[in-house]
Amino acid sequence: MAELSKKESAVDAKAYMAAAKEPALAKRMDDIVGTAFDNRILFEKIPDPEVIKFTIGSPAVQAIPHEDIAKIATDLLNNPENWLECLGYGPVEGKRELRESIAKELLAPKGVHVTADDILITVGGIGGLGMTVQACMNAGDVVLVENPTFIQAELIFDLYGIKQVGVDMDENGIIIEDLEAKIKKYNPKMLYTIPTFQNPSGRTLSRERREKIAQLAEQYDMFVLEDDPYRDIRFHGTDITPIKGFDKSGNVILINSFSKTFAPGLRLGYCVAEPRILQKIIDISIATNSHTPMLQQCILAEYFRRGLFANQVKRIADIYRPRCQALMDGIDKYFPEGTKRTTPEGGLFCWVTLPEGMDTEKLLMEARETPECKCAYITGEKSFVYQEGDKHITNCMRLAYGAIDEATIEAGCKRLGAFMTKKYEEMKNNK
Amino acid sequence: MAELSKKESAVDAKAYMAAAKEPALAKRMDDIVGTAFDNRILFEKIPDPEVIKFTIGSPAVQAIPHEDIAKIATDLLNNPENWLECLGYGPVEGKRELRESIAKELLAPKGVHVTADDILITVGGIGGLGMTVQACMNAGDVVLVENPTFIQAELIFDLYGIKQVGVDMDENGIIIEDLEAKIKKYNPKMLYTIPTFQNPSGRTLSRERREKIAQLAEQYDMFVLEDDPYRDIRFHGTDITPIKGFDKSGNVILINSFSKTFAPGLRLGYCVAEPRILQKIIDISIATNSHTPMLQQCILAEYFRRGLFANQVKRIADIYRPRCQALMDGIDKYFPEGTKRTTPEGGLFCWVTLPEGMDTEKLLMEARETPECKCAYITGEKSFVYQEGDKHITNCMRLAYGAIDEATIEAGCKRLGAFMTKKYEEMKNNK
Repeated sequence: MAELSKKESAVDAKAYMAAAKEPALAKRMDDIVGTAFDNRILFEKIPDPEVIKFTIGSPAVQAIPHEDIAKIATDLLNNPENWLECLGYGPVEGKRELRESIAKELLAPKGVHVTADDILITVGGIGGLGMTVQACMNAGDVVLVENPTFIQAELIFDLYGIKQVGVDMDENGIIIEDLEAKIKKYNPKMLYTIPTFQNPSGRTLSRERREKIAQLAEQYDMFVLEDDPYRDIRFHGTDITPIKGFDKSGNVILINSFSKTFAPGLRLGYCVAEPRILQKIIDISIATNSHTPMLQQCILAEYFRRGLFANQVKRIADIYRPRCQALMDGIDKYFPEGTKRTTPEGGLFCWVTLPEGMDTEKLLMEARETPECKCAYITGEKSFVYQEGDKHITNCMRLAYGAIDEATIEAGCKRLGAFMTKKYEEMKNNK
Repeated sequence: MAELSKKESAVDAKAYMAAAKEPALAKRMDDIVGTAFDNRILFEKIPDPEVIKFTIGSPAVQAIPHEDIAKIATDLLNNPENWLECLGYGPVEGKRELRESIAKELLAPKGVHVTADDILITVGGIGGLGMTVQACMNAGDVVLVENPTFIQAELIFDLYGIKQVGVDMDENGIIIEDLEAKIKKYNPKMLYTIPTFQNPSGRTLSRERREKIAQLAEQYDMFVLEDDPYRDIRFHGTDITPIKGFDKSGNVILINSFSKTFAPGLRLGYCVAEPRILQKIIDISIATNSHTPMLQQCILAEYFRRGLFANQVKRIADIYRPRCQALMDGIDKYFPEGTKRTTPEGGLFCWVTLPEGMDTEKLLMEARETPECKCAYITGEKSFVYQEGDKHITNCMRLAYGAIDEATIEAGCKRLGAFMTKKYEEMKNNK
């Protein structure tokens, strides 16, 4: 009876709601429904354990240094001299010792020479991205993005009513000629780039192009938002100086994240910018969350203080190197003839371009549910930004190898490759 | 030499910056400079240890259950079944068990009957405030706020270009007649209210007015953003149903925080809204921080699971009751004749109105620095929202008693009271 009456009142409430007046939501919300939904797919937990999830952008479970984190958290929270800093309100800019370690250990060695005062600790890399966009961009401004780009960044630009224009890429990242042409054509306020082991493509912007982009930022009075969360996960080749390292004008803003190198659930990242810009981002931080939570800032600062970070990134690279190789081998071995893929030197993602005419979006659910396949991937179509009249690109997918072991990657490539080959044959026969 | 050359290059860099082209920041940033600066004063750590800081809105050090938090964090991070949830990516809505505990232990007993699906975990109460404003308000929309109101909320409304109009209050909170008049005059999109132990005034909105406000929200098609972070810290009187408990239209959005009842540095809060609204706020959360950090969500969920929360809020009330009494007694005993104050039944703040003509803003630095006084307070002037032509209110101040023991409160009232009395006498004599 109680159950029944509860159900009934729920129905009444629904009916009432339908009849009730409803103030309209903010206009900015109209733009993001589609992307936001995709984002929920991005975050979606796929229940079927048999499905091999090439979707997961998370780091490997083994990459999270949980034993050190547990030990440090226990030490700090039980120490009369530390617990209050972990649990009390903190500085809006973030914990100074952490900002100093970032400047000294993560930035200076890469050629970015700043002090703790030039750094803001953010709630993940996304925190820095969202706040920088709020600080720098008005609705109607144009941002240039890599084509393809990070789908969650697209969502954030949509949220603030910013017009996105895609810049063509090749294996060395943004093509400078197309960038300069688009700058002249669209007079953009900002270029958004993930220069190292890009999401979703896994490509890396060359040193020469980084230097040129910093110069264009000055020449054309344009912000560059350099989003670099994967740079410390390099398993082949040598480091390349961030664009910020070539920045003379102060127009380059560097954001980074500890989600891939430490622990994603702690939501830690940082933002490096000139004072006139950083101060505004700090204002927004005050209005967004007061400050980034302290407990994890204290844990990470102590992790640096104990000298553990350098070995951690080395350890992670050793985990991902063979996984990336297994994925590339599997694609080459099992995917349809004419399939192209990128060759990541680090990071978590490989980008696959199936033969012309294939549609990864249309095939996704079938790939997930067909017993012989049961593989999930991120479709490529919405990672591209289109201008009116552009033909949509349907034959790409992002495969993430970070969270899956080599044997599963091999098995997944075999199943997904066979599925896509079958679909490709059917397509050809229907022509 | 190195030091010298470093200095020189710094100077060069500054000169270069001055000459360099600089893209303009977002227009929205122009509005918030003043308030943001005040906010930094709000967060300012006053170095002089002799200064008695009635400024601090933080909970008492003794109110933070650090031993339980240390024990729980240690247990979870060392448990193979728990650590990954603490450190890995989590659900965008927040941890389900935590949302269920909030619905069952914090909302249902107060008369708000919702399920976990109606709740989003946010980065502090501010996280819910900022995201709700983004989801519901367009630039140029009008929000009605209590006069005086929470200065950080003013900053957030400024950030999004929202016009603020103040509604008069008396000892029972918002005056309904003035509210209805302002609704008719300004056609507001939203009313923002802190109904219980309001910041900065310490006042509580009566039950009758809450019911009436819920009804007006429906009648006039207006959102009500109910910000209720102090409600669980009641040391006198009896609970009053939240406005959300009277909400039939679904236009009332309830946000709350664990900064005052658990640990501010963990930055945990929650938002309760109808699905059509909450889903949009979740979209914004994805674009703001992906999700609220997991470690502290797991710690708080376990704190509820162990049945510790109910006793915690009782324990806190016992800490603040005598502190509030000491402050009220001290004001009555030492402050200038004609001083008025509020009578909080809970929360952290008491609001003081000095005799007409006094200027707390002008006197602040002197009060902080004069050896016989050395007291800091939050000035009232910027807590009020003014329409063109309004006379500014200069004789108010917010005194927070949460973070100071009774003896220090008594001593502080004596010093600040003597200082203000002296200033009052001088003012009268100069007339």
